[in-house]
Amino acid sequence: MSEHQFDIAIIGCGPAALSAAVNAKNKNRDIVVLGSELCSPPMHKAPMINNYLGFPSITGEELRQSFLGHASLMGVNIIKSKAENVFPDENGYIVMSGEEMLRAKTVILCIGTPYRQTLKNEADFLGKGLGYCATCDGPLYKGKDVAIVGYSAEAEPEANYLAEICNKVYYLPLYKEDPQVRSEVEVIRERPVSVEGDTTVKTLTTKTQQLTVHGVFVVGAEIAPDRLVPGLELAENFIKVNSQMETNLPGIFAAGDCTGPPYQLSKAAGQGQIAGLNATKLVLKM
Amino acid sequence: MSEHQFDIAIIGCGPAALSAAVNAKNKNRDIVVLGSELCSPPMHKAPMINNYLGFPSITGEELRQSFLGHASLMGVNIIKSKAENVFPDENGYIVMSGEEMLRAKTVILCIGTPYRQTLKNEADFLGKGLGYCATCDGPLYKGKDVAIVGYSAEAEPEANYLAEICNKVYYLPLYKEDPQVRSEVEVIRERPVSVEGDTTVKTLTTKTQQLTVHGVFVVGAEIAPDRLVPGLELAENFIKVNSQMETNLPGIFAAGDCTGPPYQLSKAAGQGQIAGLNATKLVLKM
Repeated sequence: MSEHQFDIAIIGCGPAALSAAVNAKNKNRDIVVLGSELCSPPMHKAPMINNYLGFPSITGEELRQSFLGHASLMGVNIIKSKAENVFPDENGYIVMSGEEMLRAKTVILCIGTPYRQTLKNEADFLGKGLGYCATCDGPLYKGKDVAIVGYSAEAEPEANYLAEICNKVYYLPLYKEDPQVRSEVEVIRERPVSVEGDTTVKTLTTKTQQLTVHGVFVVGAEIAPDRLVPGLELAENFIKVNSQMETNLPGIFAAGDCTGPPYQLSKAAGQGQIAGLNATKLVLKM
Repeated sequence: MSEHQFDIAIIGCGPAALSAAVNAKNKNRDIVVLGSELCSPPMHKAPMINNYLGFPSITGEELRQSFLGHASLMGVNIIKSKAENVFPDENGYIVMSGEEMLRAKTVILCIGTPYRQTLKNEADFLGKGLGYCATCDGPLYKGKDVAIVGYSAEAEPEANYLAEICNKVYYLPLYKEDPQVRSEVEVIRERPVSVEGDTTVKTLTTKTQQLTVHGVFVVGAEIAPDRLVPGLELAENFIKVNSQMETNLPGIFAAGDCTGPPYQLSKAAGQGQIAGLNATKLVLKM
């Protein structure tokens, strides 16, 4: 890990994140933005946006380009990578993201709407055959049969990894694109409904079949905020913030959809601005 | 008073107000905006703004024109008038503004940074010779000597009115433009420092002189939120709101600088959006 410590690590790359970034850059902070998608995929599909003040009658894609262009003009450094874990070290926080480990004095979480458990019994089997990280828990299933529910293409390398060590891997993609997975992975185009078992997982049920498996992984969905940042206080699934976008953890701010509804662009940009300015203030006091 | 009842009355005409307006208009609400100044005089003086996401390197005046243009394109109705009082009636609220009285089901307060008392002893003499409304309290000073501290040209008609009934009127403008007042009003270009007296006001002191007066009026500054809306709960001078921009009074929302720092455009637009959408939701439930 590089010894370089950023002033602010911004996690996510939507409107809240980019607003935090341009505000902190405007105050000459040394920042980094970590995002697996560039500026809000749902936004660029919007055919017409009329409620972001100053831009009447604009398409989502045009507005997205304006946001990215603004960030680029300000020299914002975006790393296309998904943060997996944030934990404290002596002078701030360490952000783990794939192969990368970054240090930052402060962190702004702009991680979008939280993942909601959608499988029946999902919560009951968590840690009992059901998990969210194949790379972490895969070795427990060596030589066994597993299923992966893939919310995005990010799940594909995990399926390929499991195919190397497991007996049988079922892959249930929940996105439109054709999954790029090894030939021995069995792709099933059906929505999973529930997990069943006794003390541990025994089956994953879809609309038309029951897959007999020892393990189920749900991968590629938005990570739950309190799994990303252990100890983070939530309020009804959302990150709990005060009016200054401070969370319960010192030096950690949050902004945008992850703080709760309404899920709107101006609101996200406004909260990102507050978080960016307050993180800047805090860094200057350190 | 017209029997027409608006869905939403938006008080103020800065970025928070215009964002609330375009959001409510976008949901087809019947709204009115009441503002004595068109979209934030401090903003249009900014030589360069770099932190309103989507508009890099823009002057304050250009951004102000974008905001006003957006509102105009959406058909937002702006009445150039300052709200003086908001009180409940059976189905919502009545907003008093000069000669106008408007009805609205809900109200969004976007009234900017609150007035802070700046004269020494100002709070002590409030109601004891010191007041904020010459039209209201003027008759008490018939034939006597008074001073008016004018924060803006809005104070000029009040000075002229007092000149008709008082013996002597001093006018201390705190703005650059030449005041347009009757010839018998004595204009003093000095910053007032303090009020003195015993049980009531006896003098207004400036840097170089003591004016012997029976009454002092401070006029044309931003009205205090809880004088504008009796019963409104404040937190350290600012309007107390929750994350949904709701105040303690049902159907009254607030957004922008009046809710506290940071005093920034994206933050104001974001809060205006939340307030505009939540007022819309409430109206649709009525």
